Amino acid sequence: MKIALGLEYDGRPFSGFQSQVGQTTVQDALESALGTIAAAPVRVHCAGRTDTGVHAAVQVVHFETDAVRPLTAWVRGVNATLPKSISVNWAVEPEPAFHARFLAQARGYRYVLLNRPVRPGMLAGRVGWFHRPLDADKMATAAAKLVGKHDFSSFRAAACQAKSPVKYLYTASVERRGDFIVFEFRANAFLHHMVRNMVGALVTIGKGEQRPEWMAELLELGDRRYAAPTFTPDGLYLSMIEYPDGFGLPNGGLIEATMEDCWP
Amino acid sequence: MKIALGLEYDGRPFSGFQSQVGQTTVQDALESALGTIAAAPVRVHCAGRTDTGVHAAVQVVHFETDAVRPLTAWVRGVNATLPKSISVNWAVEPEPAFHARFLAQARGYRYVLLNRPVRPGMLAGRVGWFHRPLDADKMATAAAKLVGKHDFSSFRAAACQAKSPVKYLYTASVERRGDFIVFEFRANAFLHHMVRNMVGALVTIGKGEQRPEWMAELLELGDRRYAAPTFTPDGLYLSMIEYPDGFGLPNGGLIEATMEDCWP
Repeated sequence: MKIALGLEYDGRPFSGFQSQVGQTTVQDALESALGTIAAAPVRVHCAGRTDTGVHAAVQVVHFETDAVRPLTAWVRGVNATLPKSISVNWAVEPEPAFHARFLAQARGYRYVLLNRPVRPGMLAGRVGWFHRPLDADKMATAAAKLVGKHDFSSFRAAACQAKSPVKYLYTASVERRGDFIVFEFRANAFLHHMVRNMVGALVTIGKGEQRPEWMAELLELGDRRYAAPTFTPDGLYLSMIEYPDGFGLPNGGLIEATMEDCWP
Repeated sequence: MKIALGLEYDGRPFSGFQSQVGQTTVQDALESALGTIAAAPVRVHCAGRTDTGVHAAVQVVHFETDAVRPLTAWVRGVNATLPKSISVNWAVEPEPAFHARFLAQARGYRYVLLNRPVRPGMLAGRVGWFHRPLDADKMATAAAKLVGKHDFSSFRAAACQAKSPVKYLYTASVERRGDFIVFEFRANAFLHHMVRNMVGALVTIGKGEQRPEWMAELLELGDRRYAAPTFTPDGLYLSMIEYPDGFGLPNGGLIEATMEDCWP
């Protein structure tokens, strides 16, 4: 039997989603809790493999199991066993062909940046930070230049294992809200560190060191060495995963957490 | 020389504000960082002594020191030494008569409750939780009955050291925002656990177990044994401290963090 789960987590206690020898990861915690309910080992596949310290306002996984349990056991039973900073929000029995990773046709990431002279305190680990005033309008103009099908090698980490650096970025927005700047990106898929590198380049523009046109030049160069520093994972949230309709997922397969879903 | 500081902190790593033998507290961390900058021991006095796990969107302290430093040293220098989850947001040299605790004429606390079937994951430690649907309108009606000058013994912890249980509650509001319920309370001062006990009683009303009128009855009984359970500190934030004008504090002495100041 195949089960799909919707999750959320605070990324701070974890060395990312994916299991790694000697590290505490979301996958390990989840497989351990699911294994307790199933009374057998469980292996999960996820929609987006978040890095160390990256949060998930939404995440989708699936697994196969011979254990026959009511769906509530995969929510309440698993939540009773999981660490506090991870919760399962729903469970469904999807169509047999469902695959959390291979069928995801779009992903969304949100980056929350605190833009004030003083570093975060109450929000430590939950927001990025830049101390000098940033021009959000210029950053929004620059972000728009990233939209479309491009070779994103300029924003790719050296360790990236993606087969191709060509991705389709559907939306890229930058909005000031008081002392915060909120970035939203949606793409078919993202390269390793791609969002954090795009945020780094946008901050370089926002502080006036480069013009918005630099963003298009960076893209064309296709070389990470010309770009700006990778921003901290603290402010990064996996916020949307979209599947085709018809696989039996909630909301027709559009799994997302708006700003309002994440905090009042 | 007297210095006043504005702070914020995530309460999770700390056993409350006040120094306690064998515990990690905000006061210890702050006095240690200030002592480094002053090159001498520093003793601080705070506006609101938050409990274990309670957060401060704002907090005000003052201290006396012989060390002559630029005000920026009390912000940037101290922040370089403080734990990540505490930040100093401003420093001023107030009028000599200023006292962070004795001159505070009002305090505000906010309680953020996640009201959905599934426990918090991404927001673990930052919100309270109740799993059954709550009627926020009934809770708001009940909260209004708390406003005024009352003996709040029904909402007082056994360990409370306040001289009098009579406090003046200026405002008490309850508002639903999506899956969240936000409580705001302002008073001249609060008893130990008073906000968490009022939230417990309001939840008892919100889930339909008591009518809003029960709140007035509870107040009259003046006995903690009749009230509802104390809610978790996870969702509690010190959010406002008000001083009389004329002491040289920012914003004429009204130190507050609105919802919008705390998250975009």
